[in-house]
Amino acid sequence: MSSKEEVLILDFWGSPFCMRVKIALNEKGVGYESREENLFGGKSELLLSSNPIYQKVPVLLHNGKPLSESSIIVDYINETWPSPPLLPSCPYEKAQAKFWVDFIDKKVFEAGGNIWRSNGEALEQAKQEFIEILKQLEEVLGDSDFFGGKAFGFVDIIAIPLTSWFLAYEKFGGFKVEDHCPKFSAWIKRCLQRDTVAKAIPDSEKVYELVAQLRKMNGIE
Amino acid sequence: MSSKEEVLILDFWGSPFCMRVKIALNEKGVGYESREENLFGGKSELLLSSNPIYQKVPVLLHNGKPLSESSIIVDYINETWPSPPLLPSCPYEKAQAKFWVDFIDKKVFEAGGNIWRSNGEALEQAKQEFIEILKQLEEVLGDSDFFGGKAFGFVDIIAIPLTSWFLAYEKFGGFKVEDHCPKFSAWIKRCLQRDTVAKAIPDSEKVYELVAQLRKMNGIE
Repeated sequence: MSSKEEVLILDFWGSPFCMRVKIALNEKGVGYESREENLFGGKSELLLSSNPIYQKVPVLLHNGKPLSESSIIVDYINETWPSPPLLPSCPYEKAQAKFWVDFIDKKVFEAGGNIWRSNGEALEQAKQEFIEILKQLEEVLGDSDFFGGKAFGFVDIIAIPLTSWFLAYEKFGGFKVEDHCPKFSAWIKRCLQRDTVAKAIPDSEKVYELVAQLRKMNGIE
Repeated sequence: MSSKEEVLILDFWGSPFCMRVKIALNEKGVGYESREENLFGGKSELLLSSNPIYQKVPVLLHNGKPLSESSIIVDYINETWPSPPLLPSCPYEKAQAKFWVDFIDKKVFEAGGNIWRSNGEALEQAKQEFIEILKQLEEVLGDSDFFGGKAFGFVDIIAIPLTSWFLAYEKFGGFKVEDHCPKFSAWIKRCLQRDTVAKAIPDSEKVYELVAQLRKMNGIE
């Protein structure tokens, strides 16, 4: 990285979407500054002006130019700092990876939210749906080390941060991911052994506290 | 295109998502076969086996290898047949285009659906939201000929098919897009002058009949 480059993340420690950006930059060996946003108080002027459409973290400011939406940011990082590549070069394999990125984006966080936001019957259903989604992902993973095959790649970067919320889902849902998806659970452990991942992912107990706080704010129990 | 290539679309004439694939192939000068699916009767075995996750059109089978999710397919087409390019080569501009593709994917068709699926108060609100989204797109378009600037490109391909449903929204919603978004309306007309677009987009009256049928099937009025 040239010494002139400015790489700033408008960040929130508990956001899986922010973690994606940090892991991608770590994988590329790109240094960055992180500026923590106060999502419960007031968002910064810089966040509001950089992402006027969604007003959400993460925003990546690269030499002052803003980017938003985490999967798009990770793609940008991959193109801007090509080594090591996070996507296959074959267009078909790349499209397959993008398909699963899109699947994960559409399904996992929302299904998890349905667990911690609900009780009783609705909770049971949310749990079933969540496990079903993980089973689909487990099938894609198969016996590979990573979604990218032997190498940790784009799909892994998109998926692994979401697992930092799993302890909270497990505690509020009364289940264990490992009991249903052993290979997926092994993949989580494998990813967390990477420095690039470990230093971007917060402690699950701390995330659990955050989710407990969100439940209170949503008037649950 | 090599004469050995097989390019098959599992298609439905009224689907804006299928239209995207056809426009992209037309822009690239790639010949294709289209196989119409019976979405209201039974879907083909080929569709179910090619897209087991969503079981939806469009599917592109390129030399027998299936791809799904229209924006991902258009990206694949752009990479597989590089000329003419549909995206800017600059990673930042490419990310901006991808941001708007994602925005359009998340917002426009759903907001339109909220118009034809509702009545009374809900319809009024749906209409306001729909117009608001188009105004945001109109602002992005500015005084350019296309979302891609002077050249018709990726964002245009993603957006223009959705406008084939606008007459239905207008008729069921009692409004005119042109009254609210004159520049966006001019962009629609400009796109429809392209052969690559015109031959992939059905007559709006025919789409209106389809939406009327969908309303009946949904028990509306």
